[in-house]
Amino acid sequence: MPKNKGREPGPPMKTRDRIVETALALFNEKGAVRVTTNHIAEAAGISPGNLYYHFRNKEEIVRAIFDRIIADFDLLYGRGKDAAPAAVVFFSVFIKTCDLYYRYRFFYLELATLLGQDPILKKRYVANLRTRFRQQKDYYGALIRAGVLLPSSEKELVGNLTNGWIISDFWLTWLYISDAKITPERIGESVRHIYLLLKPHLSPEADAEIRALLP
Amino acid sequence: MPKNKGREPGPPMKTRDRIVETALALFNEKGAVRVTTNHIAEAAGISPGNLYYHFRNKEEIVRAIFDRIIADFDLLYGRGKDAAPAAVVFFSVFIKTCDLYYRYRFFYLELATLLGQDPILKKRYVANLRTRFRQQKDYYGALIRAGVLLPSSEKELVGNLTNGWIISDFWLTWLYISDAKITPERIGESVRHIYLLLKPHLSPEADAEIRALLP
Repeated sequence: MPKNKGREPGPPMKTRDRIVETALALFNEKGAVRVTTNHIAEAAGISPGNLYYHFRNKEEIVRAIFDRIIADFDLLYGRGKDAAPAAVVFFSVFIKTCDLYYRYRFFYLELATLLGQDPILKKRYVANLRTRFRQQKDYYGALIRAGVLLPSSEKELVGNLTNGWIISDFWLTWLYISDAKITPERIGESVRHIYLLLKPHLSPEADAEIRALLP
Repeated sequence: MPKNKGREPGPPMKTRDRIVETALALFNEKGAVRVTTNHIAEAAGISPGNLYYHFRNKEEIVRAIFDRIIADFDLLYGRGKDAAPAAVVFFSVFIKTCDLYYRYRFFYLELATLLGQDPILKKRYVANLRTRFRQQKDYYGALIRAGVLLPSSEKELVGNLTNGWIISDFWLTWLYISDAKITPERIGESVRHIYLLLKPHLSPEADAEIRALLP
C-alpha cells in the first residue's frame, strides 16, 4: 500500500499520523474487528514496538480516528451553526457530509459493535452526539424563524430531526444489509432520501432552492 | 436461568428448541459476539457435545434464530399483504413489530457485524429483505389506490418506504448509540417517529384513524 497516496507533496508524515492513516485504510478495507495492531504496524512499515510507543491498543487508534471524525464534522456543522439559516447553506451540509461518511465508512458500518467494545469511545460518542443534536435543534429553530422550514411544535421538530439523523447515520449500514456496494455514488443517494424527508416541511421558496442543488 | 420462564405449562421443550431459546436469551443479555457455544450449553444444562449434535457452531444457532424472526415477521406482514389496504390495518403492523424488535433485539443491534461474519446468513437476509420490500411496495401501491396514502411517483414511494424501513430497522441501534436503555417503552417510541414520517403522505381520513391508534 502506498503510504502517502493522495497526499500533497510536503514533509514526511509523523509516525503517529502514519499509523492513523494506515489503520483507517485497513479498517475501511477489512472492517475494524478483523484488523490487529500487528497488521497495522506491518502495513505502516514500522515495528509493533514502535506502534505501541504511540498507541497501547487498537481501541486507542479507533479513538484517534474518532477525534478526526469530530473535527471534520465540526468544520461542517460548526460553520453551519454560525452561518445564515438559509436553505442552500442548510442543505449543502447534507451533500458535503457524504464525503465524510465515505472517508470514515468502517466507523458507521460497525458503529454499535465498536461502541460496545470500548466504553471510553462510547462515552465520547454520546457526549458529542448530545452537543451536536442540541446545536442542530437550535439551528432548525432558526430555520423555522427564517421561513426555510414550516412552523412545527418542538416535539415534531425533534422527531423530524431524529428521523433525518437516523437516515444519515445508518444509510451506509442500510446499503450494506441490502447488499449494495459502499461507493461514493451510493452514499450520495442519501441526499435524495433526506430531501424526501424534508420536502413536506420546506417552504415553497426553500423547496425550489434545494431542488436545484440535488445531484 | 429458569429454562421454561414465561412458557405455558406443556410438554418439555425439545433440546434443539431449548438451545435456541437459551441462546436468544444470552445473546440479548450479553451480545452475540461475546457469547460462545460453551456458554450456551452450560446455560441450557446440556453438554457441549450434545449442543454440537444439534448445531455445528454459533453461526448455525444465529441462523435458526433468524428463521424464527422471518416466521414471526411473515405472520405480521404476510397477513398484511392479503389484508385490506386500510389505514388501521396498515399502521397496526408498526405497533406490533415493536414486540418482535424487542424479542430479537440482539439481532438488530449487531446486524451488520453478524452479516459480515456469516456469508450464508447475509445471503438469506438479503433474499428475505428483497421479497419483503417488493411485497411492501405493492402494498403501498394498494394503499394509494385505496386513498389511504396520497398519490406519489413510484420513485417517491420507494424513497419513502426506504426511509421508513431504515427508521424501523435501526431504531434500536439509534437508542443504543444515544445511550438510551433498550426497553419495550423506548422501542415503542419508534411508532411516533414512523407516524411523523408518514403524516404528510396520509389522506386526512387516514391521518385521523391512525392518530387514534398512537400510544
